[in-house]
Amino acid sequence: MRPFMGEDFLLESETARVLYHKFASAMPILDYHCHLSPEEIAKNRRFSNIAEVWLASDHYKWRLMRANGVEEAYITGDAPDREKFRRWTMTLEKAIGNPIYHWSHLELQRYFDYHGVLNADTADEVWQHCNERLQEPGMDARSLIVKSGVTLLCTTDDPADDLRWHRMLREDDTFPVQVLPAFRPEAAMKITDFGFADYMERLGAAAGVAVTDFASLKEALVRRLIFFDSMGCAASDHSSDYAMYEPAKEAEIEEIFGRALSRKPISRTDELKYQTAILLFLAGEYKKLGFVMQLHFGVKRDCDRGRAGKLGPDTGFDCIDTHTPSASLAELLNAMAEGGGLPKTVLYSLNPADNAAIGTVIGCFQDSTCPGKIQQGSAWWFNDSRQGMTDQMTSLANLGLLANFIGMLTDSRSFLSYTRHEYFRRILCSLMGRWVENGEYPWDEERLGGMVKDIAYRNAVRYFGFDLEMPE
Amino acid sequence: MRPFMGEDFLLESETARVLYHKFASAMPILDYHCHLSPEEIAKNRRFSNIAEVWLASDHYKWRLMRANGVEEAYITGDAPDREKFRRWTMTLEKAIGNPIYHWSHLELQRYFDYHGVLNADTADEVWQHCNERLQEPGMDARSLIVKSGVTLLCTTDDPADDLRWHRMLREDDTFPVQVLPAFRPEAAMKITDFGFADYMERLGAAAGVAVTDFASLKEALVRRLIFFDSMGCAASDHSSDYAMYEPAKEAEIEEIFGRALSRKPISRTDELKYQTAILLFLAGEYKKLGFVMQLHFGVKRDCDRGRAGKLGPDTGFDCIDTHTPSASLAELLNAMAEGGGLPKTVLYSLNPADNAAIGTVIGCFQDSTCPGKIQQGSAWWFNDSRQGMTDQMTSLANLGLLANFIGMLTDSRSFLSYTRHEYFRRILCSLMGRWVENGEYPWDEERLGGMVKDIAYRNAVRYFGFDLEMPE
Amino acid sequence: MRPFMGEDFLLESETARVLYHKFASAMPILDYHCHLSPEEIAKNRRFSNIAEVWLASDHYKWRLMRANGVEEAYITGDAPDREKFRRWTMTLEKAIGNPIYHWSHLELQRYFDYHGVLNADTADEVWQHCNERLQEPGMDARSLIVKSGVTLLCTTDDPADDLRWHRMLREDDTFPVQVLPAFRPEAAMKITDFGFADYMERLGAAAGVAVTDFASLKEALVRRLIFFDSMGCAASDHSSDYAMYEPAKEAEIEEIFGRALSRKPISRTDELKYQTAILLFLAGEYKKLGFVMQLHFGVKRDCDRGRAGKLGPDTGFDCIDTHTPSASLAELLNAMAEGGGLPKTVLYSLNPADNAAIGTVIGCFQDSTCPGKIQQGSAWWFNDSRQGMTDQMTSLANLGLLANFIGMLTDSRSFLSYTRHEYFRRILCSLMGRWVENGEYPWDEERLGGMVKDIAYRNAVRYFGFDLEMPE
Repeated sequence: MRPFMGEDFLLESETARVLYHKFASAMPILDYHCHLSPEEIAKNRRFSNIAEVWLASDHYKWRLMRANGVEEAYITGDAPDREKFRRWTMTLEKAIGNPIYHWSHLELQRYFDYHGVLNADTADEVWQHCNERLQEPGMDARSLIVKSGVTLLCTTDDPADDLRWHRMLREDDTFPVQVLPAFRPEAAMKITDFGFADYMERLGAAAGVAVTDFASLKEALVRRLIFFDSMGCAASDHSSDYAMYEPAKEAEIEEIFGRALSRKPISRTDELKYQTAILLFLAGEYKKLGFVMQLHFGVKRDCDRGRAGKLGPDTGFDCIDTHTPSASLAELLNAMAEGGGLPKTVLYSLNPADNAAIGTVIGCFQDSTCPGKIQQGSAWWFNDSRQGMTDQMTSLANLGLLANFIGMLTDSRSFLSYTRHEYFRRILCSLMGRWVENGEYPWDEERLGGMVKDIAYRNAVRYFGFDLEMPE
Repeated sequence: MRPFMGEDFLLESETARVLYHKFASAMPILDYHCHLSPEEIAKNRRFSNIAEVWLASDHYKWRLMRANGVEEAYITGDAPDREKFRRWTMTLEKAIGNPIYHWSHLELQRYFDYHGVLNADTADEVWQHCNERLQEPGMDARSLIVKSGVTLLCTTDDPADDLRWHRMLREDDTFPVQVLPAFRPEAAMKITDFGFADYMERLGAAAGVAVTDFASLKEALVRRLIFFDSMGCAASDHSSDYAMYEPAKEAEIEEIFGRALSRKPISRTDELKYQTAILLFLAGEYKKLGFVMQLHFGVKRDCDRGRAGKLGPDTGFDCIDTHTPSASLAELLNAMAEGGGLPKTVLYSLNPADNAAIGTVIGCFQDSTCPGKIQQGSAWWFNDSRQGMTDQMTSLANLGLLANFIGMLTDSRSFLSYTRHEYFRRILCSLMGRWVENGEYPWDEERLGGMVKDIAYRNAVRYFGFDLEMPE
Repeated sequence: MRPFMGEDFLLESETARVLYHKFASAMPILDYHCHLSPEEIAKNRRFSNIAEVWLASDHYKWRLMRANGVEEAYITGDAPDREKFRRWTMTLEKAIGNPIYHWSHLELQRYFDYHGVLNADTADEVWQHCNERLQEPGMDARSLIVKSGVTLLCTTDDPADDLRWHRMLREDDTFPVQVLPAFRPEAAMKITDFGFADYMERLGAAAGVAVTDFASLKEALVRRLIFFDSMGCAASDHSSDYAMYEPAKEAEIEEIFGRALSRKPISRTDELKYQTAILLFLAGEYKKLGFVMQLHFGVKRDCDRGRAGKLGPDTGFDCIDTHTPSASLAELLNAMAEGGGLPKTVLYSLNPADNAAIGTVIGCFQDSTCPGKIQQGSAWWFNDSRQGMTDQMTSLANLGLLANFIGMLTDSRSFLSYTRHEYFRRILCSLMGRWVENGEYPWDEERLGGMVKDIAYRNAVRYFGFDLEMPE
């Protein structure tokens, strides 16, 4: 029996151990997609207890607690933190085979130097231990980021955002980590949303352009893109239930958009036409600016409408949407390519059954812009498990070049989530080690070590074109 | 090489062996979903030969024989049992990697004390051996159930059924096993079936309510539910091609139902509206009664219409239907929840590609009613293989709490199928053992042993609320 | 660590090694589906360098090079072969976990006796080594086929083809390998294609029947079928995005076909109706002639229309189409069966998520025509990896009889691709060996060895009914 989450955690073979300890572990972290609050970084947030760190905004953990029958008062309600934590420990000990079990223990080990097992028996000990540590220096937001080896991180930001916290961080010489915005025009896509017309006013105000029609919306978006670009932005981010392709003439889009501005109802087909049009337009702009376009799809959000309505978005009521037709995804990318506007693109589906389809779609649109111009995103959200990551990387390797993969991101709201990069790297080295030990790829330390360092860090630096030193 | 199906069958690690032999194997069996005939239990059926036991009604085996080119006369026809058995053995020896190979040998070992290999060479020996055993005491239906360690089993019953055999069994003190009905309103869902209007008459007669409209149908169903409840029923069972959600106003449903009673044609959309309405209604009633709702979907039945028409339903002509949109499943559950009527629910899809989607859907609807209120059902039917069960449990563990899983059921028409519980438990212990040996969960005999016993038996007792002793 | 691609490559257990070396490796090769040019075989093509062999027409490799950011001039353009090869080696060394890495090295070992590793460092050495070898005798097309142990291969041919090269090969006593045509009426299915009406003229001319309506099209196809049959054809081949089922009356089909002949537009629904009709008709004819019908689906072709338009079909711009409804596949097969015209059929989906669905569909249509009348085709195209083949065979074994599987085909345009049969056989033996070593099937050398030989070669001989000696 191998020790529980010891230093060779997940590294079953000698090759895996060499690849991880000699090459992967020393790489810095480039977290090119997360949901950290730039304000909290700027203000250098501190935490009073471990429940605040872990349970205040983590819908992954909330879902597990609900699955354990915990009452909502102890999840998102006003029960005391100590009680919330106790229920969390009673939940966690049941989470055998769940990545959150590993993430939690990695965080205890790396940030709190706690190497025991967290369960109902040790709940008191861990509560006290962690809370004491949290009072020590080095446990503020910035220190946690620096300590994790992060060189650069990208938050996700609305085009109307003034990016004041990013500006403050950029002007602050005491913090060595680049905190860059990513362009996420979510609200501009949601033409059926109640607040769409109001948002257009806000966006127009931010851009200094009155948004009165689709043409002026595009003008406003271009201005915000230029502003984001000036703030170091190199990535955009889109999220939809599926990658739609419903082409329409410009005049029709104008008509649909006009109706939306007048707060009139928009049909599902018109919604898809509008979203197709705006995606095609933005793709072209991203290409001009050298931005990477990230497309996330395969999600149905707020499924339990009653509770999601009460608690708000991102509170643990989302699921995989299995309607993710590869044909429309391919049509969408083709339309971008035909218009000359297919930027570097990363495709993420929440549906793991899409792995192979995405692996073959990206292969149709690769070109000599750069190695791996079209990427299959790292196993996303619910798929962030050992199985999910192994499946995604095996599929990617079977169908293309794993060596060009830009690797892991946290996608997280927490300052402790950088251990997910460690988790990913161990799984990567385990997988590559298995192939080598099995005679499926030759033992070639230089090439293998180079691939590991590329996937762990260097590919992402090159791909996004960030101004960062390249580690040997 | 490990011995063929020895006592450590499937238990590759020391941890797996300890978990199985010390914790799993001693648990009783609660078979909460099967298709046994209560009449055969009441009459304590006996069997004259092994072909009768194995081949008289097992469409799993019939399909394998057809896949081997066996003529129908030797499958469902009137060829002599001895000849059918011979062809079965010639088929079985080709079934490497098939769960039926394992089930058959487990049944030979556990019920017939035969520990050799069944193939064409041993066909005579096994025929004679088993048939002799079948003449011995202890090989009748009731003894087989008792010998298997079953404490309770649920059959599946039509709402119009008078449950006379269940009553007889309940009043029979000599049989210690609870045999309870489950409510399966299949015929009441099938509004496009030729016999629908006739069935409504029968249902009305059973309920003492003339079913003349949708309102009186609901009244009739409520009365039957109350009757089933009085007979110990704690579960319902639904089967559909997919989990539909087509909401409609009550008046529209009345109109559709009226047309069906008048034997007029019903469109596909109207069928879905009717089925949505009746499911929403019944879910609310199940919730009031504390019934567990089981939803089975992802099946296309009677694909070869010619042969299925001749041989009847459940004769081996069904396949996976890949149209199982998670979005409509989520909409259906949300509509139940919004109406306050989401009961404890178990979701089974025949499409294994749905594992992850279902794992995320259940996570959206968990609440504090009980741990694991919404369950992903055990790998179902065609997925009852080692791979299928491992995939289902890995997915469940990745996305939720495996520890709250209510575990296995036979779904079978045979008195020998209880070895499927053994098969499941070995696979469970193998999987958990692998994680522990690999350092992914700590070796903690008490917690691990507790989880194994919970999943093998105790969770189901708690979940359904049966009146059973809880083993330590 | 096991040696890199040594003689026991992929054979991790003793059982696997015995099964492969004692039973699998000596079997001849029956390549029942490939895309070799009969003209090149007839003319006994030679190659001037390894780039010509590997890179002149292999869209698998082109895709990998594009994924590595190689410029098109070095892929399909007019850059010097030496430079193309250099870029290929720089790509290949990144292809860890990709089957093309294994195929390429197997080809180097088996055909060029080169046992090193191909990467940028060895590119010169390999270039020189292979090109020298290519000048030696035994490296022409026919010798490569003979040396590979091929007894028979089926090309894929248009019904209008005069099969002159097949005839020449048949009359050539110096070449011991049967080269047979397969009937691929692709052009006759593509009713919306620009050149459809012209093709009908060509087909009519070949058949000696003026194709003026659907009835005469059927007559023309029948005549070509009879001609193909006389040339030894035993298989047909169809490719579509999905297995459609849109039934229509004969008169409607006549009307649709008439419009197509007049070069008028055809709607998507009418296209599906026409394709359903022609498939149903051809299935019946195949049945009469004893032809095997191969249905390939789940492909979206030429996704990057700009480049595919420039470079032509099969240049690396195809992807998996995830719209592959099992229900319509089952309806299609049922309609064939109802008309008495369901021939022996092999189903291939490009979507690996379909494995289980196909495994259950074939189980619905098996009958006593022969063992395994309806087959799930070997892991196809993008799925030809170790993972893909293992998944397909595991699924097939779980749901049916692996022992009746007709096994591997190359599906290739290259004379070196026969190593894919070796790759397949090693994976098969590895899988079966794992089951046996794990106690899931008894060690029974005769039965296991027999199954291996059947799947490697003998099942295909029996299934297609070829006139070949049956190896013991």
